[in-house]
Amino acid sequence: MFSVKKLKINFKTLEDFKLFREYGLEELSMLEDLQTNIIENDCDSPFYGIYDADVLVARMSLYRINRKYDRYFVPEQDYYELMKLEVLAPYRNKELGTLLVNYAKSLALPIKTNARLGSYEFWTKMGFVPVHYLAERDRGENPYVWLPNGTALQE
Amino acid sequence: MFSVKKLKINFKTLEDFKLFREYGLEELSMLEDLQTNIIENDCDSPFYGIYDADVLVARMSLYRINRKYDRYFVPEQDYYELMKLEVLAPYRNKELGTLLVNYAKSLALPIKTNARLGSYEFWTKMGFVPVHYLAERDRGENPYVWLPNGTALQE
Repeated sequence: MFSVKKLKINFKTLEDFKLFREYGLEELSMLEDLQTNIIENDCDSPFYGIYDADVLVARMSLYRINRKYDRYFVPEQDYYELMKLEVLAPYRNKELGTLLVNYAKSLALPIKTNARLGSYEFWTKMGFVPVHYLAERDRGENPYVWLPNGTALQE
Repeated sequence: MFSVKKLKINFKTLEDFKLFREYGLEELSMLEDLQTNIIENDCDSPFYGIYDADVLVARMSLYRINRKYDRYFVPEQDYYELMKLEVLAPYRNKELGTLLVNYAKSLALPIKTNARLGSYEFWTKMGFVPVHYLAERDRGENPYVWLPNGTALQE
């Protein structure tokens, strides 16, 4: 039975992250912070994941964006930016992505993601909708959003 | 001899864009604006490209970001966000990506890009450097920047 856990940032987690395609400056920066003892077992990470026994097999990050930066929702409010949603290849088609996204929805704030090529069908199935594209705001991104009850899109 | 052109947004350009992988909400929105006569031969597009005869074979978008949103550079200033850099497969390894990025550099403002997986070597070769990652600002992106003379990174 799979369940979503908030990830602690420690050497094991960073080692687990190496199996995921999207390993970039964020992970390198976390590794450096661990190595220089700035953090250790940091519980305040933006990452959530799913384990199979002790192997991390899926993850996402969720950044809470302050309402003062909200340019998407009515009323203006805090929302989550969902990134780096990824399930390791042997674990695909087991609804693990759905489990992670449903967890994010359970936090009851709007969610915004920058939908990747080929992922539109997944986001639509999850109840997300594309925004009305605004060049100045969206600058080439593909923002898909999920609106909790009582929330609408700006304009 | 290849050269960089600013692209007009018209039906031919949008048709050309379909050959590129990164075709998303931005392109769909431009197509809708054309179809509803909101724009026609719009010269104010963020896209630059390279043609081989009349075929578009490479493109990028450059959005000018107002200094009031600058969280990267000292002194604070307008900068360009470079996105959707892409060369069609038969035209790779002909330095067309380099030609586009050099064009962006010739505008003499700092440039920020969100480096994709596997592209770090290219950006380094082009004189870009990774930023000092800040979770709140960078939210999982991989920002690489190019600094013109007299410009430094914040902190």
